[in-house]
Amino acid sequence: MPSDRDRPPLDEGLLSPVTVGHDETVTDAAYLDALVTAEVALARAYREVGLAPDEAVDEIETEFGWQGALRGCRDHGVDGTALAASAVAGGNPVIPLVVRLRERVGADARVWVHRGATSQDIVDTAAMVVARAATSRIVAALVHAEVSLRSLARSRRDEVAAARTLTQHAVPTTVGLRAAGWLRAVERAKERVEEAQQRLPAQLGGAAGTLASFTEIAGPEAAAALPAAFAHELGLAAPDAPWHTSRWPVTELGDALVQAIDAVGKIATDVATLSRTEVGELAEGAGGGSSAMPQKRNPAASVLIRSAALRAPQLGVTLHLASALAADERPDGAWHAEWPTLRELLRLALGATAHAASLVAGLHVDTAAVARNLEATGGLIVSERLSIVLGPALGAARVSELVTEAAAGGDLAGLLAASPDVAAIARERDTTPEAFVADLLDPARYTGIAGRLVDEAAARTAEEDA
Amino acid sequence: MPSDRDRPPLDEGLLSPVTVGHDETVTDAAYLDALVTAEVALARAYREVGLAPDEAVDEIETEFGWQGALRGCRDHGVDGTALAASAVAGGNPVIPLVVRLRERVGADARVWVHRGATSQDIVDTAAMVVARAATSRIVAALVHAEVSLRSLARSRRDEVAAARTLTQHAVPTTVGLRAAGWLRAVERAKERVEEAQQRLPAQLGGAAGTLASFTEIAGPEAAAALPAAFAHELGLAAPDAPWHTSRWPVTELGDALVQAIDAVGKIATDVATLSRTEVGELAEGAGGGSSAMPQKRNPAASVLIRSAALRAPQLGVTLHLASALAADERPDGAWHAEWPTLRELLRLALGATAHAASLVAGLHVDTAAVARNLEATGGLIVSERLSIVLGPALGAARVSELVTEAAAGGDLAGLLAASPDVAAIARERDTTPEAFVADLLDPARYTGIAGRLVDEAAARTAEEDA
Amino acid sequence: MPSDRDRPPLDEGLLSPVTVGHDETVTDAAYLDALVTAEVALARAYREVGLAPDEAVDEIETEFGWQGALRGCRDHGVDGTALAASAVAGGNPVIPLVVRLRERVGADARVWVHRGATSQDIVDTAAMVVARAATSRIVAALVHAEVSLRSLARSRRDEVAAARTLTQHAVPTTVGLRAAGWLRAVERAKERVEEAQQRLPAQLGGAAGTLASFTEIAGPEAAAALPAAFAHELGLAAPDAPWHTSRWPVTELGDALVQAIDAVGKIATDVATLSRTEVGELAEGAGGGSSAMPQKRNPAASVLIRSAALRAPQLGVTLHLASALAADERPDGAWHAEWPTLRELLRLALGATAHAASLVAGLHVDTAAVARNLEATGGLIVSERLSIVLGPALGAARVSELVTEAAAGGDLAGLLAASPDVAAIARERDTTPEAFVADLLDPARYTGIAGRLVDEAAARTAEEDA
Amino acid sequence: MPSDRDRPPLDEGLLSPVTVGHDETVTDAAYLDALVTAEVALARAYREVGLAPDEAVDEIETEFGWQGALRGCRDHGVDGTALAASAVAGGNPVIPLVVRLRERVGADARVWVHRGATSQDIVDTAAMVVARAATSRIVAALVHAEVSLRSLARSRRDEVAAARTLTQHAVPTTVGLRAAGWLRAVERAKERVEEAQQRLPAQLGGAAGTLASFTEIAGPEAAAALPAAFAHELGLAAPDAPWHTSRWPVTELGDALVQAIDAVGKIATDVATLSRTEVGELAEGAGGGSSAMPQKRNPAASVLIRSAALRAPQLGVTLHLASALAADERPDGAWHAEWPTLRELLRLALGATAHAASLVAGLHVDTAAVARNLEATGGLIVSERLSIVLGPALGAARVSELVTEAAAGGDLAGLLAASPDVAAIARERDTTPEAFVADLLDPARYTGIAGRLVDEAAARTAEEDA
Repeated sequence: MPSDRDRPPLDEGLLSPVTVGHDETVTDAAYLDALVTAEVALARAYREVGLAPDEAVDEIETEFGWQGALRGCRDHGVDGTALAASAVAGGNPVIPLVVRLRERVGADARVWVHRGATSQDIVDTAAMVVARAATSRIVAALVHAEVSLRSLARSRRDEVAAARTLTQHAVPTTVGLRAAGWLRAVERAKERVEEAQQRLPAQLGGAAGTLASFTEIAGPEAAAALPAAFAHELGLAAPDAPWHTSRWPVTELGDALVQAIDAVGKIATDVATLSRTEVGELAEGAGGGSSAMPQKRNPAASVLIRSAALRAPQLGVTLHLASALAADERPDGAWHAEWPTLRELLRLALGATAHAASLVAGLHVDTAAVARNLEATGGLIVSERLSIVLGPALGAARVSELVTEAAAGGDLAGLLAASPDVAAIARERDTTPEAFVADLLDPARYTGIAGRLVDEAAARTAEEDA
Repeated sequence: MPSDRDRPPLDEGLLSPVTVGHDETVTDAAYLDALVTAEVALARAYREVGLAPDEAVDEIETEFGWQGALRGCRDHGVDGTALAASAVAGGNPVIPLVVRLRERVGADARVWVHRGATSQDIVDTAAMVVARAATSRIVAALVHAEVSLRSLARSRRDEVAAARTLTQHAVPTTVGLRAAGWLRAVERAKERVEEAQQRLPAQLGGAAGTLASFTEIAGPEAAAALPAAFAHELGLAAPDAPWHTSRWPVTELGDALVQAIDAVGKIATDVATLSRTEVGELAEGAGGGSSAMPQKRNPAASVLIRSAALRAPQLGVTLHLASALAADERPDGAWHAEWPTLRELLRLALGATAHAASLVAGLHVDTAAVARNLEATGGLIVSERLSIVLGPALGAARVSELVTEAAAGGDLAGLLAASPDVAAIARERDTTPEAFVADLLDPARYTGIAGRLVDEAAARTAEEDA
Repeated sequence: MPSDRDRPPLDEGLLSPVTVGHDETVTDAAYLDALVTAEVALARAYREVGLAPDEAVDEIETEFGWQGALRGCRDHGVDGTALAASAVAGGNPVIPLVVRLRERVGADARVWVHRGATSQDIVDTAAMVVARAATSRIVAALVHAEVSLRSLARSRRDEVAAARTLTQHAVPTTVGLRAAGWLRAVERAKERVEEAQQRLPAQLGGAAGTLASFTEIAGPEAAAALPAAFAHELGLAAPDAPWHTSRWPVTELGDALVQAIDAVGKIATDVATLSRTEVGELAEGAGGGSSAMPQKRNPAASVLIRSAALRAPQLGVTLHLASALAADERPDGAWHAEWPTLRELLRLALGATAHAASLVAGLHVDTAAVARNLEATGGLIVSERLSIVLGPALGAARVSELVTEAAAGGDLAGLLAASPDVAAIARERDTTPEAFVADLLDPARYTGIAGRLVDEAAARTAEEDA
Repeated sequence: MPSDRDRPPLDEGLLSPVTVGHDETVTDAAYLDALVTAEVALARAYREVGLAPDEAVDEIETEFGWQGALRGCRDHGVDGTALAASAVAGGNPVIPLVVRLRERVGADARVWVHRGATSQDIVDTAAMVVARAATSRIVAALVHAEVSLRSLARSRRDEVAAARTLTQHAVPTTVGLRAAGWLRAVERAKERVEEAQQRLPAQLGGAAGTLASFTEIAGPEAAAALPAAFAHELGLAAPDAPWHTSRWPVTELGDALVQAIDAVGKIATDVATLSRTEVGELAEGAGGGSSAMPQKRNPAASVLIRSAALRAPQLGVTLHLASALAADERPDGAWHAEWPTLRELLRLALGATAHAASLVAGLHVDTAAVARNLEATGGLIVSERLSIVLGPALGAARVSELVTEAAAGGDLAGLLAASPDVAAIARERDTTPEAFVADLLDPARYTGIAGRLVDEAAARTAEEDA
């Protein structure tokens, strides 16, 4: 039987290029696999707590392609398209899935398929199974990005560049410190995704979270043991309690995914800005050259990442609303709103982090452009320094006059060197006015503890990843 | 060559049952058709303004399956999956599409493929072509819903029911007035979607909206005429000007779609509420019975519609952000964020309105339950009326005492009839206290101008649809 | 009695500088005025339909400071702070307001205060009264912006500038066309706000939208006439029907406000981008100079406008959710979520449009910077033109070679002039290779119909505002 | 000098009753205090690292009302309204604040006011100071809610109630388990808010996060020590590095606040639903009675809490967008969008959690209504149990027939007792058919491990709070 897995994931790709090639763990086929996986794991859990006989569970495993906790079921032969169509009437895909699964095993096994479970047990658990696989890839992409960023931060530790605030050159910074800032955000996002991943719980509560059906079938002790056994079969966390309408496991995951996209979105925003034709400090290694317009070096990955960053937080909203509006023991719409939303958020996080890993790995720094821009304001980029150093002696008003004159086109170094007050300071420091001014205007002398901050960031993340 | 059209739309369906079966106009395959359609329409527009020769345009039309302005191109033989994969590098699917199209026609035709156009001309125009088809279906679904709602409002014009505010029975209303309120909102949403549809513009501006390429090729007069000709070929509105980074055509469409989903979301919210086991006034005709839990009449369509209503407004946000952040002559992420967002919003609107049309067509009103609930508060549902009618004679404090006594379990009719003041009023009105009180407590006598409001709503929409 | 009106609007200002000085129509004091205004207008409406006696209504008007339909009530002496505190228990401010108002008039007048009305009638109507005043200012600000933009577009009609796509120089455009694009979006947003303003309806439905209380008091004919009379007193639109839980009047207003903010957000985004130190094409007239960093010309208004544009769409979401989730005849939370949200959205629209009007009025174009940037790519900004003009003769591959060589540092004009094929074309055109190439590379010769588009935009909006 | 602190917080209250009386820690006055506090703490930090002389710092502390790390500065005499007005030009309130502060101290102290700092250092730090105070209250409210919920869960541990899925009675649960679910979510949210609170960092980086100004003033060692010293003065966490454009401290706080609102929003949603007139299982202790409509018991607190839950997630979006779009070393709008957004989110969290603490403390359970509803489906609420228990013997089809007959009005107990198969089972179990059926249909016998789940939840949170 042809698997849905063979069908290429056309839908989504054409209009969401950020996800193409990075979403195989969150396709409908992957969710279908996870649904089947959860059903098989339930039978296995029943065996684990001493109820289901080996033969029945073996038959179920074999028929539906069980390949272990981490791989789950593949090639199970369930037709996802037909299933999707059948899902509408009952509002979820598990009802028709169970019919199909039960048809395919003998009576002794059949009784253990979906036994005591409610649709939500399977849908929620499958979502967590998919999320676990996806978050592994997201973490891996973030780790790759970290490696590149650490290397970038270290290698450009002392490369002085213009820092910009409110679009304007403000004071000097370093290329390395900018990379270190990106690195810290990526690192923190990675931690959050990992934390969320480690907490992803299986769901097993029965129709209303009391485990009544399981208790009826297995007695209270076995029923109480079943959720943890089920989780263990799937490599998920044992739930503290059923979370049918306590949806923080979903929102915490969602928040972590959005945070990861934010972190790479910030990088993409900076890369796009610093790639502008007039700025030219950065270029994507694989930046789209165009034969018709060869002057263009489109920051193509940055554009895709930013498109994800502009979409992701709104998906987070839906998850939070679904949590707050989760009425009763299963809500009238909020739960259903979660499914496609979490999937799309996983997809965006996968695509955005993968593109970001490539982007930072191939990022090109144009050292000449960095230097050229740094000098674009004729030394005024250190005007803050002049206030600090010269202000006490010359008075703030006089410093302001000098820099204003320079801003209007004057030669800042010349103006300063010609000042008797500046000359006096130079004398105090046993140097010539020219040398004193040259040092004063050297942006490399006004980068504060940028180097130290780079070292700390690089050391810290290196340690963690060791 | 097998068309992508043959591939069933698995992706999305499994996790978004609200859209299954209602999204064929907005699949990736449909977008691909629309991209090809836009390319063919451009060649036709060049012929229309007198530039492209008939033979070249004929070849292009034939090769790519042109079937007229409303149907566009079908069976064009372009492989969407491969195209999606190729779209990543350049960030959009048009670049690789043009390569494929040009390969398939002779040199004389080839020159007219995508001539002078930029990717955005084609992507934006294709989005509008898709939106036109989708909005036609959405409008049709809303019209179907209107027909059912008008009928419901009229047939239940005088069926008195409890109105609820802040979850509590407040005063009487009618089933018909509730339906009339739904009807007005649907009608207004339909108007808005129609207005948006009629304004959907083609896009033709060249790389930066100056039409420089078209001017170079065709001269200024023909270039100026080309956008309207292009739009005409596609049945779209002629653009006032290129809207590359003036994105209100997209946000206005988005706002109208969200409004449509709001309108049916309100219906679904009320149906879900009034279907609750304890309320039981409404039931979906096709409400999911469960063999295991036959007491349940799940408002399945309402749940699906509400899931869409909880998601849709957030998609609107992305469109607005993309509009406000549309920097330069093509932005660095905002435009890309629009594509999947608008598609998903169309999809939700298609599904939600289609389900709503079915829901209202099959909606069952349980007259007995309506009457039972109306009496649940022992006459107190007209306590506001008592204040108005009896207040002047008895004083507000005395009325309040009486109703409070009734709320605590007293017999309201008896208490009132026993009041000398009430008896006095009855005498004034030439009736007995008992008859006066019976009339006073009759909820049907306290529905204001509900009937008139129903008549107006029904007449108004009937006229429009005539 | 000191009016709340005297208290300066500190709250909001410190953290939302975009709104400071532009929000007086939407302060709590303004809402309080509008609540009182609505109560007085109801008494007046009763007189209009022939029920309330002149003396009673006169007393009410006088006591609460009625100043006509457009000005409403001022100096009514109600203490808003105490009212806000009293509003919590009942969940809205009208309940305690009515108590206070009734205390202050004689018995004959008292009976006409809030007669038959429900809190929602007053709260919704007051919101519309406030919205009418605020939208008048917003429209005025947009009109001011239009005037400046029209002037800018015309005066810079032919000033050639680099157009940028995906952050990179692409082809030439004109400063005037950029302004014309801004103008069209502002114009359209103004139309939408005006449409929404003209539709702002009064609300009068009683407890559940049946007008039962009014019917009891006034009979069905007068009750049916009352909403229009009430609206007339307030200068609002007569409602088609009560819209207690049909909230599109609110969402349509919200959508129009967001659209207005989008339109000015796009301007601010472009101004911020083009003000970057390295770009320098634009500067805000009042751009924040800093004495410490005189090289900075912060685009301060753009920053504030963009902060509004990043917030506004999310407020729109709340309005839409409130509409879709408006259960029953008054919902359990959705209505209350609207109040502060609509206010904040009005506030942002007021501030953003006012700042935008100032921004465009004072916008400085640095012609030298525009020209310098246009030449930054050494003629490659017309590489698209080279493909079109030279491609047929030289072949696309050869053109690509030439521009690639130029992109790598070659002299484009020289390379072209030295090409025998180019020389041949020049001969055909009766000119020298050098003159032909100079014309070919002149960006001013590749701006398409930019001038015509400017003229149309300027003429169109001028006509409308005439 | 009159303090702004004296001005009552009118703005916001009238239209946002959920926050009235609960937002004093996040008024503009509180932010102003925090700004002054941050400035004084900076001088103190300079003293701590050995630079600023005691006299200068003493003067600053005294003049601006320093009251210790946790209380900060009060009665500092700065006029917030004038400050807000002055904040517009420079885009933030710190620039004019520093002018005002410097004017008020002598020259020796003046030099230490805002020394080396940038506006963002102060604004961000002040926001964290405010957030610390607000989160303390939020945590306290959540702890109060926990205490009530634990008590409720325990006291109602075995009170059987109908569980509802998709609005329909499904199976039994207990009142205690519902409360335990609320408790777990509140507990988790509290943990998250606490975690976020403990991580709230001070900000000290200078104009671009290099600490260059501090290094110039104090040398690299002291500059590197300054941020931690500054944080210590304020009771905040020492920052790993400046986070000017690494905004996860803000988004993590925002996510935790939204999660807290979600948790209480779920409670409010359930309370509103279960308070419906027809359901009547719950009532708010302080539920708004109305003299005009005494039948109403409005779930007033639930409505307010839900209004917050419908608004809060959208505020989270703005914080995330601001994070992802934090371009350069200070962004052109994203940072400014954060300020009012975080404040409003804090305000909503304060109000929603405070109302929730009151709500659960006073929640009334109507045991009779709970029991009545449980029986509303005539035993069918245990139909799932019938399938499990009787299915194997009778066959699923026969069980389905029986329950369907009962659902159509039949007497379920009678139908079952009359079944020979049921009789056979009863015999097997040594009991009569009637007794067997009575037990089978007893909802209290089908609550699974609800009691155990309650015990675990109550024990766990009790331990934590001990």
